[in-house]
Amino acid sequence: MDRPHELSAAQESRISLSRPELKIRRIALDTGRENVAIISRHSRALRPDVFRGFSRVEIRRQAKRLLATLIITDEDALVGADELGLAEPAYRRFGAPGGALASVVPATPPDSLDSVRAKIAGRTLSAAEIDAIIRDIAAHRYSDMEVAAFLVGSASSITSEELLALTQSMAAAGTRLLWNEPIVADKHCIGGIPGNRTSMIVVPIVAAHGLTIPKTSSRAITSPAGTADTMEVLARVDLSVEEMKEVVAACRGCLAWGGHVNLSPADDVLIGVERPLGIDTREQMVASILSKKLAAGSTHLLIDVPVGLSAKIANAADAMRMRKLFEFVGDRIGLKVEVVATDGRQPIGRGIGPVLETREVMSVLACEPEAPQDLREKSLRLAGRILEYDPQLRGGAGYERARGLLDGGAALKQMQRIMDAQGPSPCRNELGELAQDIPSPETGIVSEIDCLRLNRLGRLAGAPIDKGSGIAIAKKIGDRVELGEPIYRIYGCEPSQFELAVAAAQTDPGYRINGPLRG
Amino acid sequence: MDRPHELSAAQESRISLSRPELKIRRIALDTGRENVAIISRHSRALRPDVFRGFSRVEIRRQAKRLLATLIITDEDALVGADELGLAEPAYRRFGAPGGALASVVPATPPDSLDSVRAKIAGRTLSAAEIDAIIRDIAAHRYSDMEVAAFLVGSASSITSEELLALTQSMAAAGTRLLWNEPIVADKHCIGGIPGNRTSMIVVPIVAAHGLTIPKTSSRAITSPAGTADTMEVLARVDLSVEEMKEVVAACRGCLAWGGHVNLSPADDVLIGVERPLGIDTREQMVASILSKKLAAGSTHLLIDVPVGLSAKIANAADAMRMRKLFEFVGDRIGLKVEVVATDGRQPIGRGIGPVLETREVMSVLACEPEAPQDLREKSLRLAGRILEYDPQLRGGAGYERARGLLDGGAALKQMQRIMDAQGPSPCRNELGELAQDIPSPETGIVSEIDCLRLNRLGRLAGAPIDKGSGIAIAKKIGDRVELGEPIYRIYGCEPSQFELAVAAAQTDPGYRINGPLRG
Repeated sequence: MDRPHELSAAQESRISLSRPELKIRRIALDTGRENVAIISRHSRALRPDVFRGFSRVEIRRQAKRLLATLIITDEDALVGADELGLAEPAYRRFGAPGGALASVVPATPPDSLDSVRAKIAGRTLSAAEIDAIIRDIAAHRYSDMEVAAFLVGSASSITSEELLALTQSMAAAGTRLLWNEPIVADKHCIGGIPGNRTSMIVVPIVAAHGLTIPKTSSRAITSPAGTADTMEVLARVDLSVEEMKEVVAACRGCLAWGGHVNLSPADDVLIGVERPLGIDTREQMVASILSKKLAAGSTHLLIDVPVGLSAKIANAADAMRMRKLFEFVGDRIGLKVEVVATDGRQPIGRGIGPVLETREVMSVLACEPEAPQDLREKSLRLAGRILEYDPQLRGGAGYERARGLLDGGAALKQMQRIMDAQGPSPCRNELGELAQDIPSPETGIVSEIDCLRLNRLGRLAGAPIDKGSGIAIAKKIGDRVELGEPIYRIYGCEPSQFELAVAAAQTDPGYRINGPLRG
Repeated sequence: MDRPHELSAAQESRISLSRPELKIRRIALDTGRENVAIISRHSRALRPDVFRGFSRVEIRRQAKRLLATLIITDEDALVGADELGLAEPAYRRFGAPGGALASVVPATPPDSLDSVRAKIAGRTLSAAEIDAIIRDIAAHRYSDMEVAAFLVGSASSITSEELLALTQSMAAAGTRLLWNEPIVADKHCIGGIPGNRTSMIVVPIVAAHGLTIPKTSSRAITSPAGTADTMEVLARVDLSVEEMKEVVAACRGCLAWGGHVNLSPADDVLIGVERPLGIDTREQMVASILSKKLAAGSTHLLIDVPVGLSAKIANAADAMRMRKLFEFVGDRIGLKVEVVATDGRQPIGRGIGPVLETREVMSVLACEPEAPQDLREKSLRLAGRILEYDPQLRGGAGYERARGLLDGGAALKQMQRIMDAQGPSPCRNELGELAQDIPSPETGIVSEIDCLRLNRLGRLAGAPIDKGSGIAIAKKIGDRVELGEPIYRIYGCEPSQFELAVAAAQTDPGYRINGPLRG
């Protein structure tokens, strides 16, 4: 294919020497992942009309290099003829101060794009080729469009060996944590089920037993709460690697946000493109999860795969295929992986949204009689499986041990230690003041709850940004409900968001009610 | 997959009613194809932090709708709290004046993206699904990332029936020209060979004979000259549909730029993503070319497929596969398509770049003795094939008739009529004043010329934006050359561009010279 420019290093340096430099100007534009550079149509650098055919430019200053997408402007107040505007993400990544001189040249596309094109054409890639792609993606050398081409090009045809290489390269591109422990336990849920906050119960149980479990979680991207969003109601979660290590040294476990830890920067970029495109293959999920766990230094990993019509995995056969993939890659990278298929037909517990979910978690840890039994049982079952990684524990005794730690108060005490060690929450943590019951459209028995729909409604209501927004569920599968009786209540903090969620819930509440029973 | 929002029409209108409106502000940012909206972090509309998770928004005003990618700004001077900034392409496409009120809601992704995901997962799409995708792409409802997902997702697995549907939908999405003639001839070259300006010779010959040949061409995107760029040295080319019809009524033929004719707006978007990604499958090429010709009202089409190591098609087997594809789709859409494989091992003629190529074309039309024989012969051969579409002409007599029209001066006269009808050129048309000979690195016989390399060098020198920049070739395949003797001369109009090209040519001139002959 016709690449606009392919220059040797010698040529490049010679050419950039003869080129006028521009003064860097920081432009307060949030362009998400994408690096964006802005130059004036009257720029003193290469004429913008020559750049028009090129979508990408390279910014250079001494040894610094940054690939960016070019926007040309006629707004003289924004960027002058002798200036180079860098939108926030590009400014941050380039790391030179405003006013510093830099040059701009048409970008040579990353060499690894040749491998992406080869993959699209059907060729199997070598581990070295995959590694080069992942390194370029992690260094933000790909545009979103190029990342999309890689994701889609490998979506349908990735081999097991390629998946293995992908996982290893993704882990290698990030920070690697070392714990110097024979067993570093971890758990992960592939997501999709509202209210499924088992980590905040499993971690204190496992840590109370004495196993190391340094749990990092993500914030929600399309759901109303991730573990990091919910834990943040109780404590600080944006820990640095050093802070995380201190917490784990003191408490055996932590519940931190993974964002500052930089475990898999390539995965962060890939997820940012997968989500809006709605592409989420099993293979990409496996590489994403295992690369992060490998980088996090885990040795034993339990994966929760909820199965249900509106869950990410719809049936037992798909769950089995997923399990095989996790096991294959896990074995090859030296990570003991166990996959548990769980009930994903409806939300776990009755709260959706950070504040509501926190209340349920604490009520389980405090062994209150009204605590949701499904959340308690699922957490005990998962914790029990993890405890059996302990060679000291008798085979089959994990569940009993977990229950003992929970019912005896050790888990609650451990959770409080972890909260204290992580520091106080920086957020407003009241339940939203706006509330509206959503009535049942029929009389009958609840037969289905659409998890995707509830996730969307919770998100519309303002969660997870508003910690106190969310949904309190009144009726679950098997419950009898009268026409007009509330099936759940929506909470909101801010009127326009709240109204959006209520209007959407009234149109489609996401419940299926079987008509009144006869006989 | 988890779509952030899916609201019914009723919900949507209800929600947007309750939302504060923003004043549209035109922002002089050239964001290429992509629609970009900019709102303040302190916006009176939905809080930007809620929008952060959504990459796309929908702008609404009365019945107008526009999907755009959102950028959030802290530059108060750029966009105020009660304003909605629209970058140039979005402003133009939305079509409401500055100061008009509009609302912004999180975008519901186009429904047709479900079909794109199905294609990525391996399903064959129906004609209706492909049509919905193409209509959304033509209406700029896809982001570049989404267009890339469609292109890559269908690159390796498109069926003949899908290709047919794609071609028909792409043609249907644009303007359809009607000529009311039994034979509307056309020619097209798949490109890649510098100097290959046969259209400017073929069209006057065919029109002089009396066949209708309303030729539209593109401007160069990655090459140093397209037919439209070169013709523009001689005459105006940015004709409206009406102007084109007048020229054709007067002269039987025209040589216009297709940009104002809007023959395949979806193709314009697709090409804009294919080029930077460097994805250019046979199928996409066939759909692109035939959709434009179908929309242009052609009935008989001759396609020039240059074959050579640095051409788009490398060998005879690939050319054959390409021919079969063109014939299959052509037959099904009622377009008589003929494919000619031609010599694509080196440039045609000796000029690369608009002014240099114009000189060669005019010298062939004027039958000057120094006119390049390869350009003359190739043009006569192609024109002869087209003339045989005329049922009045005796089988096999096309070439003779073409030569008669050229050598008798009828073609030159016809070209002058077309130039007069199109109007005078708006450009500066002198040859560049900067010139530098590039010396042969060896003594011997020229055995290979890299067309891709010469295209890049011509482009670096400033062509086609600078009409007078380009390359004048001194040595072609089979020529003997001494060490240090010029193999070509680079012309330039602007020092920084010119130096770029010279430096690149000195590093790699794109010639292979066989060592001195022995014996």
